[in-house]
Amino acid sequence: MRILVANANTTEAITTLCAEAARGAAAPGTTIIPATPRFGPAVIATRLENAIAGHALLELLAGHAGQVDAAVLAVSHDTALEAARQLMPCPVVGMTEAACLTACMVGARFGLVTLGGVETYRELIGRHGLAARLAGLEGVAATPQDALRDPAAVEVLVLEGVGRLVAAGADAVVLGGAALAGMAARLAAPVPLLDGIACAVKLAEALVGLGLARPRAGSLAPAQGRVSTGLSPALARLLRGA
Amino acid sequence: MRILVANANTTEAITTLCAEAARGAAAPGTTIIPATPRFGPAVIATRLENAIAGHALLELLAGHAGQVDAAVLAVSHDTALEAARQLMPCPVVGMTEAACLTACMVGARFGLVTLGGVETYRELIGRHGLAARLAGLEGVAATPQDALRDPAAVEVLVLEGVGRLVAAGADAVVLGGAALAGMAARLAAPVPLLDGIACAVKLAEALVGLGLARPRAGSLAPAQGRVSTGLSPALARLLRGA
Amino acid sequence: MRILVANANTTEAITTLCAEAARGAAAPGTTIIPATPRFGPAVIATRLENAIAGHALLELLAGHAGQVDAAVLAVSHDTALEAARQLMPCPVVGMTEAACLTACMVGARFGLVTLGGVETYRELIGRHGLAARLAGLEGVAATPQDALRDPAAVEVLVLEGVGRLVAAGADAVVLGGAALAGMAARLAAPVPLLDGIACAVKLAEALVGLGLARPRAGSLAPAQGRVSTGLSPALARLLRGA
Amino acid sequence: MRILVANANTTEAITTLCAEAARGAAAPGTTIIPATPRFGPAVIATRLENAIAGHALLELLAGHAGQVDAAVLAVSHDTALEAARQLMPCPVVGMTEAACLTACMVGARFGLVTLGGVETYRELIGRHGLAARLAGLEGVAATPQDALRDPAAVEVLVLEGVGRLVAAGADAVVLGGAALAGMAARLAAPVPLLDGIACAVKLAEALVGLGLARPRAGSLAPAQGRVSTGLSPALARLLRGA
Amino acid sequence: MRILVANANTTEAITTLCAEAARGAAAPGTTIIPATPRFGPAVIATRLENAIAGHALLELLAGHAGQVDAAVLAVSHDTALEAARQLMPCPVVGMTEAACLTACMVGARFGLVTLGGVETYRELIGRHGLAARLAGLEGVAATPQDALRDPAAVEVLVLEGVGRLVAAGADAVVLGGAALAGMAARLAAPVPLLDGIACAVKLAEALVGLGLARPRAGSLAPAQGRVSTGLSPALARLLRGA
Amino acid sequence: MRILVANANTTEAITTLCAEAARGAAAPGTTIIPATPRFGPAVIATRLENAIAGHALLELLAGHAGQVDAAVLAVSHDTALEAARQLMPCPVVGMTEAACLTACMVGARFGLVTLGGVETYRELIGRHGLAARLAGLEGVAATPQDALRDPAAVEVLVLEGVGRLVAAGADAVVLGGAALAGMAARLAAPVPLLDGIACAVKLAEALVGLGLARPRAGSLAPAQGRVSTGLSPALARLLRGA
Repeated sequence: MRILVANANTTEAITTLCAEAARGAAAPGTTIIPATPRFGPAVIATRLENAIAGHALLELLAGHAGQVDAAVLAVSHDTALEAARQLMPCPVVGMTEAACLTACMVGARFGLVTLGGVETYRELIGRHGLAARLAGLEGVAATPQDALRDPAAVEVLVLEGVGRLVAAGADAVVLGGAALAGMAARLAAPVPLLDGIACAVKLAEALVGLGLARPRAGSLAPAQGRVSTGLSPALARLLRGA
Repeated sequence: MRILVANANTTEAITTLCAEAARGAAAPGTTIIPATPRFGPAVIATRLENAIAGHALLELLAGHAGQVDAAVLAVSHDTALEAARQLMPCPVVGMTEAACLTACMVGARFGLVTLGGVETYRELIGRHGLAARLAGLEGVAATPQDALRDPAAVEVLVLEGVGRLVAAGADAVVLGGAALAGMAARLAAPVPLLDGIACAVKLAEALVGLGLARPRAGSLAPAQGRVSTGLSPALARLLRGA
Repeated sequence: MRILVANANTTEAITTLCAEAARGAAAPGTTIIPATPRFGPAVIATRLENAIAGHALLELLAGHAGQVDAAVLAVSHDTALEAARQLMPCPVVGMTEAACLTACMVGARFGLVTLGGVETYRELIGRHGLAARLAGLEGVAATPQDALRDPAAVEVLVLEGVGRLVAAGADAVVLGGAALAGMAARLAAPVPLLDGIACAVKLAEALVGLGLARPRAGSLAPAQGRVSTGLSPALARLLRGA
Repeated sequence: MRILVANANTTEAITTLCAEAARGAAAPGTTIIPATPRFGPAVIATRLENAIAGHALLELLAGHAGQVDAAVLAVSHDTALEAARQLMPCPVVGMTEAACLTACMVGARFGLVTLGGVETYRELIGRHGLAARLAGLEGVAATPQDALRDPAAVEVLVLEGVGRLVAAGADAVVLGGAALAGMAARLAAPVPLLDGIACAVKLAEALVGLGLARPRAGSLAPAQGRVSTGLSPALARLLRGA
Repeated sequence: MRILVANANTTEAITTLCAEAARGAAAPGTTIIPATPRFGPAVIATRLENAIAGHALLELLAGHAGQVDAAVLAVSHDTALEAARQLMPCPVVGMTEAACLTACMVGARFGLVTLGGVETYRELIGRHGLAARLAGLEGVAATPQDALRDPAAVEVLVLEGVGRLVAAGADAVVLGGAALAGMAARLAAPVPLLDGIACAVKLAEALVGLGLARPRAGSLAPAQGRVSTGLSPALARLLRGA
Repeated sequence: MRILVANANTTEAITTLCAEAARGAAAPGTTIIPATPRFGPAVIATRLENAIAGHALLELLAGHAGQVDAAVLAVSHDTALEAARQLMPCPVVGMTEAACLTACMVGARFGLVTLGGVETYRELIGRHGLAARLAGLEGVAATPQDALRDPAAVEVLVLEGVGRLVAAGADAVVLGGAALAGMAARLAAPVPLLDGIACAVKLAEALVGLGLARPRAGSLAPAQGRVSTGLSPALARLLRGA
């Protein structure tokens, strides 16, 4: 099984980090294929960067359509997730989505720890329809760069956030942020910690195993005969549905 | 990997049907272990039967604790699901829960078709915190016995229900009811149809693969030193935490 | 009028405490009939115990069906409440349900103070559809045993919790927990304090007074012809609807 | 026990109808005291009339403060309910509120049948925080005048509405509208029908029985030292808190 | 364009303050017409006063019907807003409603700072259906009289509340309370501060510019042939629809 | 005042249609500046096209930053609205957002009629936090091309949809879809019909009139020092915050 791990920002170090976490979680027969967009923001920290990265990520995915069995979005904002599902002929899983859905299977309510602000994660969880399962959000005072450079220091802060979320009623905690990929396995916490990339890889494998047919109706049915201008050849072709 | 497929009613034919569907979905290295409770209702059709079956199912699970890698609840009401998670030292997945979470990964909103009344499914989806993802519920005029005896006739009714849900905005449809186990794979529908048992097996495999630690805090932490009277030895022992 | 006060755990001291609180609230012509289950957990502190106790409580209720005019569930988790309503030919009221509904009649938003963790109460109030009326939950660091042994010390902690809830916008406060039965009347608080048992007795009397017919349709219609194995004769008979 | 049954419109026939329904539901020792406002709309059919009637009803209540043990608002919009609770030194219950809370004790979800439009009832139930318990609303093509003049014809329409609500999942149905007071007891329906006046009288008796103290804090604490112009002497005095 | 700025309490100083704020926000061609009710509470601080003021405000508005192009309710509780919309032949905007809707256009979630208790504002925002956009509420320990007498001291407190709301995720903050009219423009805050009167004037101008027809159906259609007793001639006439 | 009317698809005819509707609604001193993206889908009908168009629209807006007083997004999906607000130094209003917020000021609940499927509008209104105000959605069996080619035929279908929404409780109806720009003014309906472009222009004028400061904190604060690759010079410069 071939799983594309598609970063949505242009920082190769993040792609590499996520690919490593993905390989650590993948089943024996699964091959991880990392990919980085051609254009867009170096890091996605705000709404503006996230909206731009959506196009970059879709172009990246389009270039792999038909060549992979599933795609994992290695971006904690689950950027352009529904659009990617409509685009691709294979299952697509977002890393935060995957961690939240997994959290729902190991706890009643879950929390989320991330680096920096929490508001866009609150919205994301609301968009996924999971607000009723959310016990709280904790933003740690550190940047993705800090996490890459001095992970031990960031781990201390993350564990403090986990503690506050457990006190607030969380039965499980999602680590949100591509820069935290792989960290959960190194931490000892009183409740399960969920790594977005690991969860996404396992859920992608599960979806491939189910072998569901692609929809012919509904809001995720493939585009047919849609005209466009100035897009990459692969993306334009998938819009045409040819 | 050993996955317990635990029915919550005492009808062996349902256990057998679910075990077959589970084997059809399981990965090569997965062994399916079917189990049926010692006491309780023959079929769970109402709130009263479901509440009684909770105890029967927990007793059944307790007898397998430590001998399986995961448990799938082969009962569409996800009976005693959270209690089962607290009880067992391994992942536990409910069949309707699994189908709904999987539906969230292949569509924006999903519907559910079941046999008979829909109100307890509406509540169940609400209890899972997924009401915002629900496009509608369709109750088909047939009994579990009908589905076992004349599946082809029931399949026609189910597909009509699927059609109405797609018109109401569903991108995917859950087939709810243990008696429908295995039916999804035989139907041709315009959107993905989700079989609870198949989804539960794949998600159980995914959870086993993640290897999450058992919680030491929160509402699912194992019982410790709890005293009881008149319960099965295995259940009483797990309540004591010995 | 005969009102059954049915404990769901096997601790007679809790049954006695609740029966006393019930007698203190009952109208002159009301007789309180205390009852304790034959099996199950000694105290219900977790999800697991609550699910097991559901069966124990339903068996207990079944043994009194037709001999009482109403039943009060003397367990703060409102264990198996809807199932009990389907089972019994008379009104059934849960003690926390009763306190919350009463709180809705004396305030805009209410709070709840309990002993220990609050998450299962949050879920319970959500299941009752009253989350929008909830101002907050306070868990006091004391056990039911503490409340029985040294009520004065626990009263101090409860009043502190009440104060925090009033500051958070509560117009009334529910005392949650069978072990707190009767405490509300002894405390002087700036807002009404609601005793679950007292509220349940008064609402049960009100329901008996209304003389509503039993449903013949809907999710609480009595079971008819349901087959079971290994249940108490009374419970099995009510499932058969004979 | 003296219970004020306070109409909010100026039509004496409605006051009389509600007083009769109240007497039919009251316990032996309860005296029903009917009252009609001095000014305001003849019938409350729209938002505008409801807002005006709030003042009229509060003036009416103020004139009975200290002379009754509880007040029932005999107006299906639960007009000025929270304000009335702040005003009066005794329990106050709204008739639709009472029917909805009672419905919550005899069913999982309830419906409401009324004469004419349903939107203000949808809002009212939302304001009471009970939207999650609402299965549906049915507006019958008849006026309050029709109900007073030819109740049998209206009963047929109401029963049809009840049937549709049961099909939509209602376990109980509220009859909304002061002009329907007393009708529920005459109808044979497959689920309990709830009469607002009867429910309000029983819940008012229950609240009086509980003997809760008046709040000294929160949003329903009595007014103190509030200055006003042009109000009735009783209302102005209660605002001053003298 | 003539915009009525209708206070709902009888304190002329508040009317004057709001009229000044309105003039500061109005477009060149807009004339502001201040008005104060004939009767009712001097200040609206509680539910009781708000309910009484509804009638007073509607009487006041009725007296200007047909003579103004729009009405702004200069009362932070948006008193009788929907009733006023049904009553008047022109657009009607509430000051807190206007500030909240404007906040939705300049931020993802907004907060609200007011003087004193916050619960009625929480309800108001819920009634407007905007609870999902609310980041938090802060009640400042000061009275409307303090704000009129020593605005500088109150401004310090308000800015502290704004800071807490920004930390809680607010992208914009509403200043709630007629006594705060005009204050927003004097404060330097890290996010936009919204003045209810200014927002209401601009939105009223926008609505006049749209020239929408009055509804002939729905819950805001004008009253027709409604009979009343003891109301002001203008109000009674508009109820009759003559 | 200069208002940019920015289309998000590349069809000039839609830009022209929206610009005409904008000019019809604009105040005397307002200049409408139409703009069409350089790349992207010809029409936005699906999630995939909408996600791609986000980047195209942001690039278009960036090119006008500092040269306009406000921007109206002439795309009924309110594409990249929050990102646009973060990007631009001036107010930004989405056309469907504007129509929904306006609908909130002229009715209790509103409906929406559009061409084709309704699910993405349901999500959009949910994302705006206005789901509680939504009475229903109606999808008319016609394409944007139909609306441009034979508006009269589409108007008949739209009015039928409006009728169904009024019956479902809508006090006002939004016409959703850039291809319907200008249609509302030509239709005679029993409730106000809201044209997205007209509403957006009036609300944009109102926001300009308020003169609110740009946020320095929160999720819409301007980007500072953000690095990117392969974006248009204007967009890259605004990300850098130079």
